[in-house]
Amino acid sequence: MIISMKLHATRQEIDEVRKQVEHFGYKVHSIEGEERVVIGVVGVGDVTACLESVEAMPQVEKVVRISAPYKFVSKEFRAGRTQIRVNGLAIGGDEFIVMAGPCSVESEKQIMQAAEGVAKAGAKMLRGGAFKPRTSPYDFQGMEVEGLKLLQKAKRATGLAIITEVMSDRDVDLIAEHADVMQVGARNMQNFVLLKALGKCGRPVLLKRGMSSTMKELLMSAEYVVAHGNPDVILCERGIRTFETATRNTCDIAAIPALNELTHLPIILDPSHATGKRSLVPAVARAGVAIGADGLIVEVHPAPEKAISDGAQSLDLIQFEKMMLDLRPYIELWETSRKSEALAAAN
Amino acid sequence: MIISMKLHATRQEIDEVRKQVEHFGYKVHSIEGEERVVIGVVGVGDVTACLESVEAMPQVEKVVRISAPYKFVSKEFRAGRTQIRVNGLAIGGDEFIVMAGPCSVESEKQIMQAAEGVAKAGAKMLRGGAFKPRTSPYDFQGMEVEGLKLLQKAKRATGLAIITEVMSDRDVDLIAEHADVMQVGARNMQNFVLLKALGKCGRPVLLKRGMSSTMKELLMSAEYVVAHGNPDVILCERGIRTFETATRNTCDIAAIPALNELTHLPIILDPSHATGKRSLVPAVARAGVAIGADGLIVEVHPAPEKAISDGAQSLDLIQFEKMMLDLRPYIELWETSRKSEALAAAN
Amino acid sequence: MIISMKLHATRQEIDEVRKQVEHFGYKVHSIEGEERVVIGVVGVGDVTACLESVEAMPQVEKVVRISAPYKFVSKEFRAGRTQIRVNGLAIGGDEFIVMAGPCSVESEKQIMQAAEGVAKAGAKMLRGGAFKPRTSPYDFQGMEVEGLKLLQKAKRATGLAIITEVMSDRDVDLIAEHADVMQVGARNMQNFVLLKALGKCGRPVLLKRGMSSTMKELLMSAEYVVAHGNPDVILCERGIRTFETATRNTCDIAAIPALNELTHLPIILDPSHATGKRSLVPAVARAGVAIGADGLIVEVHPAPEKAISDGAQSLDLIQFEKMMLDLRPYIELWETSRKSEALAAAN
Amino acid sequence: MIISMKLHATRQEIDEVRKQVEHFGYKVHSIEGEERVVIGVVGVGDVTACLESVEAMPQVEKVVRISAPYKFVSKEFRAGRTQIRVNGLAIGGDEFIVMAGPCSVESEKQIMQAAEGVAKAGAKMLRGGAFKPRTSPYDFQGMEVEGLKLLQKAKRATGLAIITEVMSDRDVDLIAEHADVMQVGARNMQNFVLLKALGKCGRPVLLKRGMSSTMKELLMSAEYVVAHGNPDVILCERGIRTFETATRNTCDIAAIPALNELTHLPIILDPSHATGKRSLVPAVARAGVAIGADGLIVEVHPAPEKAISDGAQSLDLIQFEKMMLDLRPYIELWETSRKSEALAAAN
Repeated sequence: MIISMKLHATRQEIDEVRKQVEHFGYKVHSIEGEERVVIGVVGVGDVTACLESVEAMPQVEKVVRISAPYKFVSKEFRAGRTQIRVNGLAIGGDEFIVMAGPCSVESEKQIMQAAEGVAKAGAKMLRGGAFKPRTSPYDFQGMEVEGLKLLQKAKRATGLAIITEVMSDRDVDLIAEHADVMQVGARNMQNFVLLKALGKCGRPVLLKRGMSSTMKELLMSAEYVVAHGNPDVILCERGIRTFETATRNTCDIAAIPALNELTHLPIILDPSHATGKRSLVPAVARAGVAIGADGLIVEVHPAPEKAISDGAQSLDLIQFEKMMLDLRPYIELWETSRKSEALAAAN
Repeated sequence: MIISMKLHATRQEIDEVRKQVEHFGYKVHSIEGEERVVIGVVGVGDVTACLESVEAMPQVEKVVRISAPYKFVSKEFRAGRTQIRVNGLAIGGDEFIVMAGPCSVESEKQIMQAAEGVAKAGAKMLRGGAFKPRTSPYDFQGMEVEGLKLLQKAKRATGLAIITEVMSDRDVDLIAEHADVMQVGARNMQNFVLLKALGKCGRPVLLKRGMSSTMKELLMSAEYVVAHGNPDVILCERGIRTFETATRNTCDIAAIPALNELTHLPIILDPSHATGKRSLVPAVARAGVAIGADGLIVEVHPAPEKAISDGAQSLDLIQFEKMMLDLRPYIELWETSRKSEALAAAN
Repeated sequence: MIISMKLHATRQEIDEVRKQVEHFGYKVHSIEGEERVVIGVVGVGDVTACLESVEAMPQVEKVVRISAPYKFVSKEFRAGRTQIRVNGLAIGGDEFIVMAGPCSVESEKQIMQAAEGVAKAGAKMLRGGAFKPRTSPYDFQGMEVEGLKLLQKAKRATGLAIITEVMSDRDVDLIAEHADVMQVGARNMQNFVLLKALGKCGRPVLLKRGMSSTMKELLMSAEYVVAHGNPDVILCERGIRTFETATRNTCDIAAIPALNELTHLPIILDPSHATGKRSLVPAVARAGVAIGADGLIVEVHPAPEKAISDGAQSLDLIQFEKMMLDLRPYIELWETSRKSEALAAAN
Repeated sequence: MIISMKLHATRQEIDEVRKQVEHFGYKVHSIEGEERVVIGVVGVGDVTACLESVEAMPQVEKVVRISAPYKFVSKEFRAGRTQIRVNGLAIGGDEFIVMAGPCSVESEKQIMQAAEGVAKAGAKMLRGGAFKPRTSPYDFQGMEVEGLKLLQKAKRATGLAIITEVMSDRDVDLIAEHADVMQVGARNMQNFVLLKALGKCGRPVLLKRGMSSTMKELLMSAEYVVAHGNPDVILCERGIRTFETATRNTCDIAAIPALNELTHLPIILDPSHATGKRSLVPAVARAGVAIGADGLIVEVHPAPEKAISDGAQSLDLIQFEKMMLDLRPYIELWETSRKSEALAAAN
């Protein structure tokens, strides 16, 4: 932590800041510049409390935190890649994982068609919402328990693992009974009560980045889940909100390598929400493979124009199959690269 | 709803779109331009479902919704201002309401000092968090039930109404027992499970705008609470997230008159979170009164440098008293303006 | 300047950074924490060059600049408020200055009507574009020299000072002949060639904040003009670009007091571009007076529905007159406050 | 163009709007919904003027433009890809073009080393700034004419085509004498005087997206150059400004396929400015190839830690060579894809 004093801070004011910092158990080093005094803080203690306290003192210009505010999710805690086991798969391992399926579970026929279609094309997991966060109270809110049962049925028929969204700490146990991976939507990325409950759920968690959350905040939310007992967190970049309206969100593709420098957790890309436009999904998916994401989560619907939600960004089954074919050589390059990485790490 | 077809849409594709729209119970008017066909949709039906379905059709360029997606909260539903009764006060009425207090309830001494101080200076409601949404799992998470009891004690001592945050649908009943107003924080503005539960809580709700939520989304979230049974929603502008880092958030002051054109609900301003800097709070508060907000919610702490959270944006009691004095002539102008408005409405 | 090394930086890497910094003439203080080394840099030298150089070194995590990158425009350079003399007025002094007029000069009749109308209502300066920056090459680009002459004619008739936009360093001399204040539009805030030329123009400059420029960047652009010889710069907040589309821009009202803490230059508010909606202009103008801006620049057109540009955000003459009446008590409070400030400074 | 009237618009108000629209030469179709009247406008006329005029009328709620505001740059004007010839290369053709070199030309030794290094690794064009837009007036502003001469010398030695930035309409002729491609920086994307001058310069123009410009605004700026006589415009995505600070900008990778749907102009990616961090450049470059950009522009410096500007985002020559090797299989896939596209177009 570095504390920069205001230009005209007096000796007494500087001493008060030093005392306050020492009160939190830290050691203090002052650097006296021509213009102002900067105070370096080292040692171990309650960083946030100390920082907030000092920030509130008069004559303090600015406080800069140097150490990362997260621990378990950081690259310093674990150097390699974390592999998360789901239904025989290893996310973050040497297989590129595609999750696909409709925005919402709408009917038995729809989810079975979707499941069979995406499995045939090479997807390994089935997505589908049973509990839906909808902006309007008047929109379809999901099939709820009935939807969970249909997902189970699709799993039995196809062998696909199931990923579905959880919106409240109240529903965690129920959904954990039916899902292989618990999905936290962008709007709930900082629903801390939910994150704590997911720390005890016994299932891997896919955590979507909030639409205006920084990478650091995403990692802090992952830290919540891990700190409460669950080390299996998959991060997901799904586009952020910016001034640009030509796409639904702005796909922050560079967040993938940037997060890889900070954390050992796997990171997947959602090209459907990132763009909001079906025609852009295959190109963005290709970029996701090339940049080194651990997988994709893609919206696919047997009949997008009949979809209750997100039809405009859903591929139909033929488009999805075509995309998977198109991705094949990129996925081969991805696999080669993971193998070299593993070899390099072994030596 | 207006549907714009792509440039080279064929007659058959246009007819398919017309049929799809009519299938949802709407009437259709085509406008055939030199360049493209535009389809106007009128009538009553499930707008969102129809819109999402049409958006997903090939050869549809763009769908623009004309009618507002909310009903109960709109100016069309009720022309005047809604007044919300709390503990003898009328928010949205002819008295400017100041809510003040610490970010978190930290101890009996702290909350009693704060309550007495802000009451003396003219605040009418006491804010203070017992359940705290903190970015880090390692930060203080609030005194919880103990904190609620201390707020009650402060209420008995000072007569101030209590406003405090609720973070999960699970806690709604508990908090409703102790609070006069239920606060929904920015991070929970789209926690739809919580909003539904607040529809049944029997207490007014203060709904803070999400840090990257549009005004329309804020109104949709208010609509959730109202549609689920609770008409008493107070909106709160607390700054939005932008590229500017000199302030903690960017205070979207124009949202206040802009929302007043769209809704009859009262709107208050939070100059503390909007700026994140104590020294800017009084000036922004002044702007809030002048622009016609219905009130303010301000962070005040008896000893900001000892605050567990948000110390840098908290006023101390002397600063708060000074601010209230400074605001007095602006509040008088505000009252005059409300009286003229009432007179005009009566004639 | 504070340099934070990566976690596993070696002694040799740290020494290389120290040497590099000393090479630029600075002194170095290392702080050795448990986890990492932080290097404090003090002294006088070429900060930017040193910073960029060190940032590029391997094993450097982050470099934080402590001192402000601007000099002449900073509060440290001059403590009080700079007053800028224009045609008998003092912007930044004890009179609140309203500048008003149409977006573009369109005809003699239009500009004369506008000038007479705004003068009658209390404006002190006439705005009107003769050279127009238009997003489309097919839109009206301004009356150019002819427009400048009409502005002069309006000045002779009403006594109003003239403010008009300059878009290229090539036009600086021409416009300086006809204008009292040279306006730099948001899109040219970082047109450094233009800023340099304005340093020699002999006229005050009104510098609009770029639509995605930080306050710091605005001050750096002002510094360009001052460093090239012209101390008379007026800053203007006109809204920034965010995700919100309900208003044309987001009015960053808190930038006014925030800039007042950093600079001695006067700051005015443009409520017309900040909102883009005529109906919101008077409320935002009121907030601007209350928060302590030095003046307003407002779009006014004798017949907004006939305006070639910006009609939707232009007030007509009756609306402007009404707004000026409405502002009167707020301006009185503003004047009282400036007088107290002057008295306090004198003692 | 679609005009949506306010809810309570009277018959007379609607008729006034109709008349105004007809006055601009358009035909009008009213659609009378239960709630409000929507007016469709068809025909040919001055769209912007009509739109601005109607928007300014009372009782008009909103005006939505349907047709694109640009012509020459649109996919409707030319269906295929435009190829731009530079020094024997065809940008937008079937060869992936890499432009590389330092941010600024700093010395003969530096630029010659850079040129030879990037040529050897496979770059086809040399970038290097002689006129530099710097945020601070105190920073190095470029070697100017001397720098242009050094670029020429590097061209003679290596055969690389030269791309360099132009900042003012005043310098267009001078730079056109020395450069093969004229670069417009992000800060000048809406410097309309400069864009007009480039319409006459006789050289291809590389137009960088403004840091807060929409794709539509980028296309409008390209339209300026084309409408003023120069059809050879290359677009460049270089990251946009958002709330995220972990990277210098946010790389809007999806803008590449999104722009490909709107325009026939070639589009290249600048992974250096898009991220601001050397370690992220190769991964983002890979994504750019995979998503179908026509080329890359990359900052490379023989000794980044000695660079006067942008050192932290510059690769050194060894890193650049490694990146080019790493890109090879992706570029092969890119070439295959372009060939299939050409074959498909031929049939």
